[in-house]
Amino acid sequence: MNRARSAPEAEAASARAPRAVPGGAVLRMADLHAGVADPVMDTMNFLNEVTLNYPEAISFAPGRPYDGFFDTEQIFTHLRRYLDHLADQGYSPAQVRGAVFQYGPSAGLIREILAESLRADEGIDVPPESIVVTVGCQEAMFLALRALMSGPDDVLLVSSPCYVGITGAARLLDAEVVAVEERASGLSCADLEAAILAERVRGRRPRAVYVIPDHSNPSGVTMPLDIRLELLDLAERLDVLILEDSPYRLVSPGAQVPTLKSLDRGRRVIHLGSYAKSLFPGARVGYAVADQPVLKEDGTTGLLADELAKIKSMITVNTSALSQAAVAGALLASGGRVSELNEEAAAYYGDTMRLTLRGLERVFPAERRARLGVSWNAPSGGFFLTLKVAFNADNAALDRSARNFGVIWTPMSYFHPEGGGDHTIRLSTSYLTNADVEEGLRRLAEFVESESAEAHPRP
Amino acid sequence: MNRARSAPEAEAASARAPRAVPGGAVLRMADLHAGVADPVMDTMNFLNEVTLNYPEAISFAPGRPYDGFFDTEQIFTHLRRYLDHLADQGYSPAQVRGAVFQYGPSAGLIREILAESLRADEGIDVPPESIVVTVGCQEAMFLALRALMSGPDDVLLVSSPCYVGITGAARLLDAEVVAVEERASGLSCADLEAAILAERVRGRRPRAVYVIPDHSNPSGVTMPLDIRLELLDLAERLDVLILEDSPYRLVSPGAQVPTLKSLDRGRRVIHLGSYAKSLFPGARVGYAVADQPVLKEDGTTGLLADELAKIKSMITVNTSALSQAAVAGALLASGGRVSELNEEAAAYYGDTMRLTLRGLERVFPAERRARLGVSWNAPSGGFFLTLKVAFNADNAALDRSARNFGVIWTPMSYFHPEGGGDHTIRLSTSYLTNADVEEGLRRLAEFVESESAEAHPRP
Repeated sequence: MNRARSAPEAEAASARAPRAVPGGAVLRMADLHAGVADPVMDTMNFLNEVTLNYPEAISFAPGRPYDGFFDTEQIFTHLRRYLDHLADQGYSPAQVRGAVFQYGPSAGLIREILAESLRADEGIDVPPESIVVTVGCQEAMFLALRALMSGPDDVLLVSSPCYVGITGAARLLDAEVVAVEERASGLSCADLEAAILAERVRGRRPRAVYVIPDHSNPSGVTMPLDIRLELLDLAERLDVLILEDSPYRLVSPGAQVPTLKSLDRGRRVIHLGSYAKSLFPGARVGYAVADQPVLKEDGTTGLLADELAKIKSMITVNTSALSQAAVAGALLASGGRVSELNEEAAAYYGDTMRLTLRGLERVFPAERRARLGVSWNAPSGGFFLTLKVAFNADNAALDRSARNFGVIWTPMSYFHPEGGGDHTIRLSTSYLTNADVEEGLRRLAEFVESESAEAHPRP
Repeated sequence: MNRARSAPEAEAASARAPRAVPGGAVLRMADLHAGVADPVMDTMNFLNEVTLNYPEAISFAPGRPYDGFFDTEQIFTHLRRYLDHLADQGYSPAQVRGAVFQYGPSAGLIREILAESLRADEGIDVPPESIVVTVGCQEAMFLALRALMSGPDDVLLVSSPCYVGITGAARLLDAEVVAVEERASGLSCADLEAAILAERVRGRRPRAVYVIPDHSNPSGVTMPLDIRLELLDLAERLDVLILEDSPYRLVSPGAQVPTLKSLDRGRRVIHLGSYAKSLFPGARVGYAVADQPVLKEDGTTGLLADELAKIKSMITVNTSALSQAAVAGALLASGGRVSELNEEAAAYYGDTMRLTLRGLERVFPAERRARLGVSWNAPSGGFFLTLKVAFNADNAALDRSARNFGVIWTPMSYFHPEGGGDHTIRLSTSYLTNADVEEGLRRLAEFVESESAEAHPRP
């Protein structure tokens, strides 16, 4: 039986329907929320789609994990593992069925497993109740911003350059962002403090500071331990929160500096987590650790995580049970340690980063480097490094690079909320094979040489 | 290798960490976004969690699908089916792997399959490009509201009573909502027109009207065809859009009135879709059909769907590939017709609704009905009906009902954004077995009798 309307009914309806309107609804961009016209909104789509536009080019643009380690059958294994785990925990078949098929708690199904992994991998020791499972780290950012940015005077501090996911989310919420220029060594707490105090003088209320302390996207810079401690101290003194986003830690080789959250004595840190790099992006599972107490009007105290879950219930209701099951299954299979699961991947990414750095030395030897005004940083892990050039590295330059030289990169200007980065490009090393890195850098050097020749024609 | 910090490193870090702060960060509710303190925010959590608080009670509260038709192994079958489909479409194993493991397009992977299903099931004929796959229908609502509610003068019109998902989303976006009181027969276009014109007089800009035309949540009312045509005409005349949310059509028995979108000649309707009831909630897959043209500043024209996808990229990036694969696999297995897939379920829900209506006749025979001041409506499908009572059906009454009589329902006052519904309760029939419906109604009648006795003590 087809429950759609029958043919005569449809005809009758059609005859009575309003006549086709020549124009009908036409929306103007100016009538939509300003966020959609903001350049930052196009950036992430660019990052995902640029490779489609130039299929032959080697792309240093997308911050995607290398997918050579993925195996489609793993999905079935992971799901089965989690279902078996539920059965082991005493779930009846009907309860297992309910857990994966029905609506679930907004805060998530797999918080206990995540809490164990955070203890084992990151020295972050929080009760499961302070965790909210989210649709990727992006939703975790969105929830944290929505909770904290409550009035027109509230401001979020970010470094410049800064990941576009946070500035884009702020834009959608009409939340004010103040950018603090990063130094070559990364964010300076003195600069940050000056910015916070300046905002206070302007009558505004700095609520939180967003940072990617480890192998940052886009700059590749890692915050040293002493700066982390200084930042925590600053957050306490100036009564602001820290949004810590660290997707690249467990896919980087060797020991990492402790997370801000593991050093957090005053519950100043909301830790925003991602499994997109350490497990796989397609699951869209991330989380927020929000163990801050919230004093309610009736005198009782709850957790910020509860408030984030409430917000989540009005955005996505809950995170896909299938995705949560796949992630939990993968964690259970590795004894709850994402770090162990990623040993091979982390070594691979480390090798690729080193290969890229050696490749840059080779294609830009000292003389050429000096002549072209080229320099770069040397991250010890993560997916990104930045390259300074003498020409304007804008979209037009990118287009020439892709079309004439078959190599793609990301203009760093995308990541500067208040301008800057015009002479810097971001190179992502994560997604490429070794052969592509080598060939891509050769092409990149040719492109840089060509730009230099055009900008400064030599006799 | 454990990539977390080594023990000496951790100790050193700990020694240098800021001393434990007695209070540390303590947030006040008043410092968080006002949306979290809004009563509507607690409602959906209530709907999901009330059954946990009174495990012995029979609950007419949650609007969940009956899960007797679910089978855990279906997940594996559906996923496999979609992966096979990709292979049939010429995807290489690496491309299949990329599709499920990697980041995907913000607008979704399975738009072609959804477009075919919409044509087959609903007479909605739109190109795949006008569809955005979302994390449940809730995200589709959120995206549509964020796109349309662009300034402080913009208002959304809703009926009262109204689904809390839309008013909650509006609250998070600080978007103004104007409620139009429903009549017993449902929303009146004359009332709606008056409200729109009154808002214009106040200098505000009505942007859209949110409706659940079929077996509405919470009222159970279905909008007749002539009102649908009148509403489309009104939208055209007054230049507003219609947000059509119809999760209950394909799980209702018999022929349905045509969707607003299938009658939409002027692209006035943004159709918000859900698979939560017709497939399963745990997938968290919904969609928006937004084929409205958007005139850009450079003179080119795009689709509203593109703008919704941009917004989505800053909220959830993309919908879980696993969830999309499971939904697509289920659709492919049924020849692309959700209606065929749901024949058994729709018949079941129809039977339960009729059973409930017959049960109400039995427990409230004419004399008792008159004495207690009880009446109800008689939906032809969907999950909900409403029952009018003579007492104040508030949280306190609900608590008495659950504790003393073992029966749970939802106060309709939850669904009235501007007050009202104090003497009405919502009964959800979808989740219960026949035996529970019978027993639940018996308990409900006892509870109503008891409330009546307390309110109006007889000699």
